[in-house]
Parts: sequence; structure tokens; C-alpha cells
Amino acid sequence: MKALVFEDVSTIRLAEVPDPTPREATDVVVRVELTAICGSDMHVYHGRERGLDAGTVMGHEFVGEIVSVGEGVTRVQVGQRVTAEGHITAGTDYNSRTGNAHIARDMRILGVDRNGCFADYVMLPQDNIWPVHEGVPDEIAAIMDPLGNAVHTVMTAGVSAQSVLITGAGIIGLMAVTIAKAAGASKIFVTDLDERRLKLAKKIGADFVFDPSKGDSWIDIVDQNTPGDGCDVLLEMSGAAPAIDGGFRALRNGGTAALLGLPSRKIEFDLSNHIIFKGARVFGINGRRMWATWYQMEELILSGKLQLDEIITHTLPFEDYERSFGLMQSGEAIKVVLDLRA
Amino acid sequence: MKALVFEDVSTIRLAEVPDPTPREATDVVVRVELTAICGSDMHVYHGRERGLDAGTVMGHEFVGEIVSVGEGVTRVQVGQRVTAEGHITAGTDYNSRTGNAHIARDMRILGVDRNGCFADYVMLPQDNIWPVHEGVPDEIAAIMDPLGNAVHTVMTAGVSAQSVLITGAGIIGLMAVTIAKAAGASKIFVTDLDERRLKLAKKIGADFVFDPSKGDSWIDIVDQNTPGDGCDVLLEMSGAAPAIDGGFRALRNGGTAALLGLPSRKIEFDLSNHIIFKGARVFGINGRRMWATWYQMEELILSGKLQLDEIITHTLPFEDYERSFGLMQSGEAIKVVLDLRA
Amino acid sequence: MKALVFEDVSTIRLAEVPDPTPREATDVVVRVELTAICGSDMHVYHGRERGLDAGTVMGHEFVGEIVSVGEGVTRVQVGQRVTAEGHITAGTDYNSRTGNAHIARDMRILGVDRNGCFADYVMLPQDNIWPVHEGVPDEIAAIMDPLGNAVHTVMTAGVSAQSVLITGAGIIGLMAVTIAKAAGASKIFVTDLDERRLKLAKKIGADFVFDPSKGDSWIDIVDQNTPGDGCDVLLEMSGAAPAIDGGFRALRNGGTAALLGLPSRKIEFDLSNHIIFKGARVFGINGRRMWATWYQMEELILSGKLQLDEIITHTLPFEDYERSFGLMQSGEAIKVVLDLRA
Amino acid sequence: MKALVFEDVSTIRLAEVPDPTPREATDVVVRVELTAICGSDMHVYHGRERGLDAGTVMGHEFVGEIVSVGEGVTRVQVGQRVTAEGHITAGTDYNSRTGNAHIARDMRILGVDRNGCFADYVMLPQDNIWPVHEGVPDEIAAIMDPLGNAVHTVMTAGVSAQSVLITGAGIIGLMAVTIAKAAGASKIFVTDLDERRLKLAKKIGADFVFDPSKGDSWIDIVDQNTPGDGCDVLLEMSGAAPAIDGGFRALRNGGTAALLGLPSRKIEFDLSNHIIFKGARVFGINGRRMWATWYQMEELILSGKLQLDEIITHTLPFEDYERSFGLMQSGEAIKVVLDLRA
Repeated sequence: MKALVFEDVSTIRLAEVPDPTPREATDVVVRVELTAICGSDMHVYHGRERGLDAGTVMGHEFVGEIVSVGEGVTRVQVGQRVTAEGHITAGTDYNSRTGNAHIARDMRILGVDRNGCFADYVMLPQDNIWPVHEGVPDEIAAIMDPLGNAVHTVMTAGVSAQSVLITGAGIIGLMAVTIAKAAGASKIFVTDLDERRLKLAKKIGADFVFDPSKGDSWIDIVDQNTPGDGCDVLLEMSGAAPAIDGGFRALRNGGTAALLGLPSRKIEFDLSNHIIFKGARVFGINGRRMWATWYQMEELILSGKLQLDEIITHTLPFEDYERSFGLMQSGEAIKVVLDLRA
Repeated sequence: MKALVFEDVSTIRLAEVPDPTPREATDVVVRVELTAICGSDMHVYHGRERGLDAGTVMGHEFVGEIVSVGEGVTRVQVGQRVTAEGHITAGTDYNSRTGNAHIARDMRILGVDRNGCFADYVMLPQDNIWPVHEGVPDEIAAIMDPLGNAVHTVMTAGVSAQSVLITGAGIIGLMAVTIAKAAGASKIFVTDLDERRLKLAKKIGADFVFDPSKGDSWIDIVDQNTPGDGCDVLLEMSGAAPAIDGGFRALRNGGTAALLGLPSRKIEFDLSNHIIFKGARVFGINGRRMWATWYQMEELILSGKLQLDEIITHTLPFEDYERSFGLMQSGEAIKVVLDLRA
Repeated sequence: MKALVFEDVSTIRLAEVPDPTPREATDVVVRVELTAICGSDMHVYHGRERGLDAGTVMGHEFVGEIVSVGEGVTRVQVGQRVTAEGHITAGTDYNSRTGNAHIARDMRILGVDRNGCFADYVMLPQDNIWPVHEGVPDEIAAIMDPLGNAVHTVMTAGVSAQSVLITGAGIIGLMAVTIAKAAGASKIFVTDLDERRLKLAKKIGADFVFDPSKGDSWIDIVDQNTPGDGCDVLLEMSGAAPAIDGGFRALRNGGTAALLGLPSRKIEFDLSNHIIFKGARVFGINGRRMWATWYQMEELILSGKLQLDEIITHTLPFEDYERSFGLMQSGEAIKVVLDLRA
Repeated sequence: MKALVFEDVSTIRLAEVPDPTPREATDVVVRVELTAICGSDMHVYHGRERGLDAGTVMGHEFVGEIVSVGEGVTRVQVGQRVTAEGHITAGTDYNSRTGNAHIARDMRILGVDRNGCFADYVMLPQDNIWPVHEGVPDEIAAIMDPLGNAVHTVMTAGVSAQSVLITGAGIIGLMAVTIAKAAGASKIFVTDLDERRLKLAKKIGADFVFDPSKGDSWIDIVDQNTPGDGCDVLLEMSGAAPAIDGGFRALRNGGTAALLGLPSRKIEFDLSNHIIFKGARVFGINGRRMWATWYQMEELILSGKLQLDEIITHTLPFEDYERSFGLMQSGEAIKVVLDLRA
């Protein structure tokens, strides 16, 4: 089969590799129809993340159809349209056994620690398979992994009848805007340095958008438009130290912060003023809850309230992978979906 | 001043009574501008609720302006447009002192245990006053008490990205429909025996409406339209035993029920199947949280997402109180607001 | 192998039946060393619960050693000392997939819906196996199923620095006493009609014990010994309507009730006064959370704070099953463990 | 009256000042009987905290008797034995009005922003008074403020059947040890650099104590003694960057941290590994919840389970204040209570 294989930093190659087959009795093989490029794939490509073993098939976002299953598979079957949770665990540690497999200590990631879905076929344990509801369009099904990150963040913080600040309007930040709106946020503030993304944020649900490079007056606007002198909820989506600092300053005493954006190194952080004096609640967000987040996501998609069309800016043939990486790199594209059905 | 005074069951009389003055140093007198008739006022009128002392001024829903304050009042001032929380407590018991004054054991109710607001003026402790945001229209401000019941119920259950069943489309049930929608419910089911109210429920947010007198097939429809074999959330607004029974049957295992409707006596209840085997969570709802519910309500009103216009069916002069009681009695009116400004 | 087989109401027979073998690739066979008799086994025996198919091997509480595994088993291995969760599900429904398999809609119960552990060997899916920590004694390991019911109830309600009322001092009620004490309850009240059990409750942690058949004055004592006019937490362990009624009357406004005892039919219940006016939170408790409850239980056992010795009143040879059922029936025994190692 | 008055950094003086009288109608004057020195008093003394206005009476921990009340006081009365919450608010902001007055934005602190209790008399609003239960000894009543900090931290994190790591065995850290034990922690780990305090921690409830200056192997011990590869709960009581870093490293994925210790400046913090990847929950702790924390504290004290005797190392006459500050400064004393009754 054809596959996009990691060779070295800045070197990805379209290669011919053997088709995968079930390794364990409970493995499943899926024919990939659409796959999507994640920001983390970009980081891998640019060497900003831990390297992959040379020859690893990249990619973890997809939709496809099950084409074969091991003899121990009981929960899914050949022919089902599916996507998957890319966090894979042996199921034996504390978190895996208490409903928190997404933060298992032995977690391995599809397309990073084992072969992924930038390929005609991908192999996974049945416990990681999510059958896609017939009401979910293919292009959305292909991006349920990052959409799930955003849903997990929004739902963990709790936004119902709350004022919400989203710092960072990247792919997941933008998804969080439309999700927060659908999930009942009363007011949404968004910060980013890119005017185009701020405009899109406003279009899909933000009430106020700010470029914080233009000064701190935006924090006063948040204060004036909330009854509690600051927003109820901070969803941190940037991983950038100044955004984190500004976000916490704009959070009201007793507010809730959910942090998804990953700083690439330790940051100077004002623990006393940002968390302790404020009496804030802070949640670290990693991956998606299996499968609570996925059910919530399905509910949100089926409700028709999510505006995702303008976040998926491009759908291109799989062979155009180089151009696709380039479009994401330049910022021209937000989310690119690759089509393997041709 | 003029006031509607309880005489006896089925006897309410428009009387001339003395103007109230602050009794405690922290009391406040408000000139009533709009007041509204509560379902419980109807119950009092018909003797379906504990009697009032003869001569008590009825009513607890209003908006008006502060006209005088005791010398110990520091938190509000003459001239403010206000409404009020009608649950009054001395502030010394466990619940009053731990943020749950709405369920204080010494709670006394405005218009029941002391003179209420069906009058030109009403007197209250400053701790019960809620200054009304300038963005809240008068007619909405006048009904924040029952709207708060509905907000308390919806927010306690938690409806964000959840499927919600509301049993009973009376005043508060209908309010709960539009609140649940605004607060992020993914799907709303409503049951009632009155077709006109079901139609209104659908218009303001319900996805499915059912008349359960037509059989139990509606429970199957709930099952088929939810991923968890039943709704995530039940909001019980009727107090009727069959609705309670049906509501719990339609609730999924592990679901959440918030109960506001008051059965008038003990009911036959299937504790084993409805709560225990299901592993359900059940919340009793009484009044409104001071002031968390009120802030949430303000957020929801200001967001512009609530559709309350068709729930307030009539605004009439105060003198038309007999006709107003009649309109509510016949079911022709849903919510009637009385105007004292003339 | 030998096994206790259900024949008919009041007829259980020690029979010779075929040894079980793995049916699915992920099944496990365990040699049973100790097994214990559950109150529900007594109910089955007496026909107070739905009947079993004739020939079904009864029993669901045990400790033993894995002697064989199917080829798809990866999480446990031959030779491990184990007990098991008796709630078995296919793993495909909403609750099974969201960390709540204990309330799956397709739940089947060991020793009821399939052959159980009153036998030399028992067969189970690997997903139901709990490897027993070496610090847990055999007799405790054999009763982790009912102990888990009690832990689930106590931990769901939350008893840390709370006053706790336990209505019903049967096996699980008594377990709840020592668990609530170990889990940080500040004060424990217990009601039962059996003086001997009340004495034992007091010995293992209760501060006050009451026989409610002697009048309602006990509710005043609860009031006087709590700051909030009633207990913070009610753990209902009896399933008896008068105990449920008394328990809710003794619960403070805003308190929490966790209900485990199963009324055998609908009861007259005062929903308005017991739940709604009180603003109570009520949790239905079924089974044990997989595996959060089990980890909590292990922590509690290893802490050395649980006093279970006097709850396990008898350990007898398996062949003495008739005498054992009789001892439990008469109330002379509390918990009986049967030994198959001889 | 006599009072300890702040003059300048390192200059506190015993002065004769006018007796306080009620300023507002709802003010209360208390004759101070015992008062205690807080770590923050030491910081003020040494200029490590924002300065006080010269002439301010210091101190915020005390027990005494109400000697006069303003005419608007309805909730307490002359003659009551009381202590007080030192966080004072006008009661008009969002947090004050939603049960979170301890984090009000207009919060002023007794003995810092207004005259405190290092004096024969102290004046406070009635809303800050806590009547002391007759079962609470005077010396404990005098330190309910810092004890409340510890209770707030422990109860916010939730320690019932949990493994708990306490980083820092200062006054509040040591209090947290005995509170966590009483509140149901299954296992307690404590770190500190002072061997004497570690010994005391062990005596009053810690299972393992570590001096982290001796290397990181203690983190492995925590791992080996917990089922989830790290402790369930971190209570950070030191404010020291290395302790914070070590504490988060020892916390399991999905664990809960409650932070009370205040770093004196921004610290380098590994947000990605400590909070985000871990999926941790983090709570900032400031003051005490009015009055939920106080009721919990009373329950814990009355349960007889707290071991506070060895934390209050000295009770000295008020006039020995210089020696007392010295004893705390040198570390010879842990908590010093000053007696004004002579």
C-alpha cells in the first residue's frame, strides 16, 4: 500500500509499504478514506517534537471502513464506517482501568509510536475504534480527534451560561469557539495575533475578539462585560506564555481554566496571583475521554449547531501532501483533509 | 396604599392598607411597578396550599424602585430598579451560612408568611434585593422569581451537550425549554397533556413533543433518539405521579433528574427501578440559589437567547386582577403580568 | 467438578457438573478457593428474587487462582490470585463505553444469568477479573463484591468530615459503618431493629445507634448532634419503607442520600418533603464502579482501618452449605465464607 | 487599651491606643482573650510582605467574648464566645454574593488593612463573627483561622480513601497532616527539610516522611506505595519552587493538587508536564469558605480526631510578644498563642 513515511526532520516520503494485518486477536484493519493533517504532524515534520523512528507511517486523524478483524474481535465488524481514538494503552494501569485511558502511563500514540493512518490501511485495537454515526459527514468524521480535543476542553471547564475566554484561535481554538457556543456559553471572548482568524472566530460565535499585541485594554473590556470582574472560564489553546499570562489575568476570582495548549518548555508563571489568590480551578487537558467526549461530540455534531465548514479550508488528493503541508505551514490553510478514495 | 389581600379560600379583596416602612435597620421599601401572578398564588386562592393569615398581602414576583431604606442599609440605595428573592431567612442557620439560604430551615416566603408585592409598596430586607441590570426589560424583571426556578433546575442538572426531557409544559416547564436550549442542550423532549402548550414548547426550542396520554410509545422515541437508551437529563416540572413515573422510565441508566414539580401528597414510587438500579442522580430543587442562579439568569437574559415573549401572554392593569386570575385559571393565559404604574 | 446448583425455589443441590472452559478468546477460568454467601443468594433461594434457570451454578463472591486463559487474554495470567466483578457486559453500550459498565443495559450477573462460583471452577471474561493485592487476606478478598457495594455507596455520597446516618445494619450496612469511619466520617448514626447488630455497629465505629421501633425521638437526637439540623449524609441500606422515610426525615436540608437497599415493590414516598423541599441530592447505587471502587477498596483494606473480622462470623467447609444458608437465614450468622480448599 | 502596633519593618511596639467602638450599625466589639501569631505576621514584621500603614494594630487569630454590638446587629449578641473570619468584604461583588466571599475582589484583611486583634479589643462586622462551639477548647478556637486554611485545602482536594502528599511541614502543613488523617486519607506522605518537623508529622499521622534535599528517590517510594503511579492528591504548603516541582512530579496522572503555599515571585513552572499531559486538576486555595470550612472544622475538632497539641508549642503572656516572635523566627516554636487574660 502507499503511505506517508517519516524519514527525518523535514523529510517525509510517499512510499510503498506492506499492508498491515491484525497482530493481536483483538486488532482491526481499516481502509482509510479521508485523513487529516494535525498541528502535531507539522511539529514532527519540523523537528519541534520528539522524533519518530525512521519508516514510521505518520497520521492519526481519519475516517474509513473496517476491512478485516482478528478472531477475538466482538465489538465491531467488517464493513463499519469508523474513526478511532489514537491514544492506545494495554488497559492494565490505574487510569486505563478507571475510565481515564486517555492519560494512561503506557499510552502510545498512533502515527508516532506505531504506524498511523497516512496510508491506504491502518491497524488498531478494537478498543480504539469509534463507529461513526450515519448523521456525521465524512469530512467531520475525519477530524473527530482534534474536534474531540476541543470538546474535551470545553466540557471539562463547563461553559453553560458562562462567559468564556479562548486564548488562541488555531485549529482547536476555533473549534472551541463553535463548540462553546453550541454548548451554551453566554458570551465568548477570543484572543489571537492573526486578524483573519479573529474574523473567523467572530463569524462562528465569538462576541468579542482581541489582538493582545495591541495592549492590555482588552482585559478591561472583558471585566466590563462580565458581572464577576473577569471571565468565568478560560480555555487556553495557544501554549504561548504571554497568552497564558493574559488569560489568567482576565479570569475572575474563583474562575475555571482548562489548559490544552502545550508550552514547549518551562515558563515563568505567577502561581500566586494566577491560581492561588484567585482561588481558581485549573484542569489540564490531554486527548479525549474514552468515550464520554466522543458521545458529547456526536451529540453536538448531530444537533447541527457546530460551524466547522470554514475551519476545514481544504480537501485535497492524498498525493498533494506536500502542497498540503505547505498550506498549513504558511497559515493559508487552517485544516486540510486528504482524500485517499481516488 | 392599595393591595390585594387574602381573606379566605376563593376570597381575595382589593383593599386600602397602610404603607409599609422599614421595620429593621436593614429593611428596604420598594414601589412596585409590575407584579406577576404565580401558579402558587392560584393554589393559595383555591385553598390547595396552606392558608395565609387573613389580611396578608399576597404576591412575590415584581419589579420596582427603592423608595426608602433603613439606616443600616449599605448595599443598595434609593432609586435603584430592583426585584427580589422571596425566600427570607434570619441568616443564622447552617444553610443560610453556607451559601444555601434558599433552603434555610427558618425560611419565610414573601406574600405568604409576610406581606407581599400585590400592592403599591413592598418591604424587604436588603439581603433579598436584586438590582436589575439595565439590559433586562421590565416585564422580564418582574418574573425573575419563577424564571429563576427554571434556571436553578436546568443549571443544577447540567444540560450542556445533553439530551433533556422536560415533563410538564406549565409556566416553569416552558421557561425550562428555552433556558435548556440557551444553556446548550443538544436535544429537548417535552411532555404535556395540552396540545397548545406542546406547540409553544416546540416553537421555543423543543425537538420532540409528546402527549403521554396517547400511550407509552414516546419512550421508545426518546430511546431511539439518544445514544444511551434514554435521555441524559430529566427535568420534572409537573408534580404529577404519572409524569414522574414516565419521566424516570425515559431516563437512561446513570442519568440525572432534577425535580421541581411538587406532588401534593405522597406518591407510589418505584425507587428500585427508577433510581437505584439505574444508578441515577436526583436533585430536589427549591427556590433559587442566592445569588448564583440570579447571575446565571442575568447572563442568559442578556445573551438574547431566551424566548419568553410568548410565555408572558398578558400584561393587564392591576385592577384587572379578577380577570387575570380567571385567565390563568382557565389556562387561556400562561403568565399574566399586572401593571401598577397607571 | 462439584457445584451448588439452583433447582427450584428452596431447592439447591450439590451436583457434579462439567468443568468450565474458556468460551471466548478472552475468557479466563479460576479455581475457587473461598466463596461467600450473599443476601441476594438467600433471596434467590427463597424465591424473593427472579428465578434462575434450573441447573445454574449459583454464587458470585469468591477468591481463587487463574488456571487457564483463552488465547486472546493479555491482561491477566495463569497463577494469579484473583477475585472478580460479577456484573458482565458486552462492552458496547453507552454506559459500558463511558466508565459505567456497572449499569450497562445488557448487564448479566454471575451466578444468576450464567454459571457462578459456588463450584470448584468459575469462568469469566478477563475484563471482569481483579487481581488481588498480596496485602489483602483471603477471607476479605472473597467478599470484595459486597464490600465494594458498601464502598461504592460511601464514596459516592462523600463522608469526609460529614455526619452520616446508616439505615439498616445488615451485612452491607455494617460494612458501611467501618468504611465510613475509615473514609473520614465525623459522626456515625445507625438504625436497625436488631439489638445485636446495633451493638456490633457501635463496636466498629458508630457513635449513636437507634432502634426506630421505639419511636421517633432518635431523629431529635440526630438533630441535636449535628449543626445543620439533621445529618449531612444518609446511606440507605435496608430497602424498608419505614427506614427510608425515617432516614430522609433525619437528613438535613441540602443533604446527600445514597440509596443501596432495594424495596421489593413500589413504596409510598414523600417526594415533596424528602427530596424537593429539602433540596436533597440522591444517588442510586448499583454494583461497584469498575474499577474506581475496587482501587478505593484496596486502599481502605491496606490502610488497616477496616474492622471486618466480626462481620465475617463464620468460615465453614463448602459441604456445610445447608447449615450455612440456615445460619444466615436465622440471623445467627452475618457473613458466611465457604472453603473449597479442603 | 494595649495593642501591638506596626511601626515599620522590624519595628513592632506595644502601645496604648483608644478602645474600638462599632463604626457601622452592624459592627461588633470583642474582648480578646487569646491571640496567635501567624506566619504572615512574621512576614509583615520582616518586610517580606506588603507594608502596613504605621500605627495599624496587627493580628487576625483570636478567641474572645463579645462586649458590645451596633444597633443593627441581629445575628450575634453580647456575651458570646467567638472567633472571626479575617477576610472582610462589603458583600456587594460577584463572589461575595455567590458564597465565595473569601475571594471577594474588595477583600480587606484584619490586622493588615484595618486594626487587628493583637489588642485588648477588636472590632469587626457581625457577618465575620463565628460563635465558638462549647466543645472547642480556647487554644484551638484561637487558631481556627490557620486551621481553617488547612481544612479548606484538604476538603477542596478531597482525601477520602486517597493517598496524599503534603509538601511542606510548616504550621499549616502539619495541621493538614492531622486533618487529612481525620478526613479519611488512606496514606500520607510528607516532605520537608526540617527533620524535627518530619518527626512530628509522622507522630500525628504521616505514613512516610521525606527530606527531598537527599535526592529524588522519595518519588519512587511514593510510586511504589500507590496503585496509580503517584499520589492521588498533592497539598502544596511550602510555596517553594523545588517543592512544587517535586510535588507535581510525584502526583499521578489524573491526580488533584490543592495549592496554598505562596511563592513570593513568579517561578519557572512546567505547565506541560505537571498539569496538561497529566490531566491534573489544580485548585488555588485562599482563606476559608464562609462558613462551609468552619462547619467542617468544627466537626473535625469535635470528633476528637485532630492532634493539635504538639503544633501549639507555646502559650505565653501577651507581654512576651518579642520572645514569641523570636521563638517562631528561630523555628523553635511552631505555633505560639498569646494570653491577654492576665
